[in-house]
Amino acid sequence: MTEVAREPLGRGKHARRRVLEAALEVLAADGMPGFSMESVARRAGASKATLYRHWSSPSALLVDAMDAQFRPLPEVDTGDLRADLVTLLTAFASALSGSPFPTLMAAFTDAAERDPALGDLHAELTRRRREPLLRLLAEAVERGELVGDTDPELVVDLLAAPFFYRRLIAHQEMPADMPAAVVDLVLASVRLGTPR
Amino acid sequence: MTEVAREPLGRGKHARRRVLEAALEVLAADGMPGFSMESVARRAGASKATLYRHWSSPSALLVDAMDAQFRPLPEVDTGDLRADLVTLLTAFASALSGSPFPTLMAAFTDAAERDPALGDLHAELTRRRREPLLRLLAEAVERGELVGDTDPELVVDLLAAPFFYRRLIAHQEMPADMPAAVVDLVLASVRLGTPR
Repeated sequence: MTEVAREPLGRGKHARRRVLEAALEVLAADGMPGFSMESVARRAGASKATLYRHWSSPSALLVDAMDAQFRPLPEVDTGDLRADLVTLLTAFASALSGSPFPTLMAAFTDAAERDPALGDLHAELTRRRREPLLRLLAEAVERGELVGDTDPELVVDLLAAPFFYRRLIAHQEMPADMPAAVVDLVLASVRLGTPR
Repeated sequence: MTEVAREPLGRGKHARRRVLEAALEVLAADGMPGFSMESVARRAGASKATLYRHWSSPSALLVDAMDAQFRPLPEVDTGDLRADLVTLLTAFASALSGSPFPTLMAAFTDAAERDPALGDLHAELTRRRREPLLRLLAEAVERGELVGDTDPELVVDLLAAPFFYRRLIAHQEMPADMPAAVVDLVLASVRLGTPR
């Protein structure tokens, strides 16, 4: 556990970020059962009362923390659909291969089953992470590169899901060429249309 | 909570099954943090000492409980690859749409991040669930229905992962035609080969 200097939270962005980071550290270390205003305050070197002035509940704090940490995927749009998808999925596989993202995802997945508010947040964070992929696919459809009856939501499921699955469910390695292999498999279908 | 009659565990298969069911009930209700020999014993109406005579640890008990519950997927092999895959994935989507399987999966996924022994078990249970899919693909390759350079492990990832992902990560519905849509998308690629 890292010792941190005690500062009033009011010192602005730096203090806020420290609390959000502490929240994720607590979640990664102890999971949701260990996640409380008290444990986060202790880790951040702030008082519980101070945290409650900024967040109404542990869930509200967790929403902000997950949001701040996991919003950005790189914006890519070179016009080359395959290359752009591989870039995005490589960034994604890299986050899932590192730490603490997968551990946080697992804790959050479990918590979402028990708390509908966290379930809604989880759905919203996932929706945001899918946006860059959906945008690339929509542009490719406009360019006539993909068949028009492609269901873009299902295509994004097929592109993104294998990485979660391999890391969190199957506990298998994700080789460096996995993003390209997934993109090639999926694009082969949606470029040609799906036979019935 | 269900009241159960107290019986010595030694009465054989029935008593053993009751303890395994109680273990899954505790896991679904309270997650791993609430999972202990004591809580399972209480739920099963057995003594903690009795449980310890049959299982050396809560993890060993959980291994048996998950194993007994989640081993079987229907054996199908009509020779029609598409139909057989749709049958398997429909059974799978149905398990993930019901209860308590997804909640147990989520709790187990989180627990696997914190306990390497549970991680190994999770990997093993997943490997077993994949077997029927891998067998169908291998037979289709033998029949010359799929291109030979297909990576069957990756194909199974693409077939199975979207269902986990949609239920546990994206929190979106799984329409009744999703298994067929996934199978059609994936088979379109592997029947034709993947362009480079």
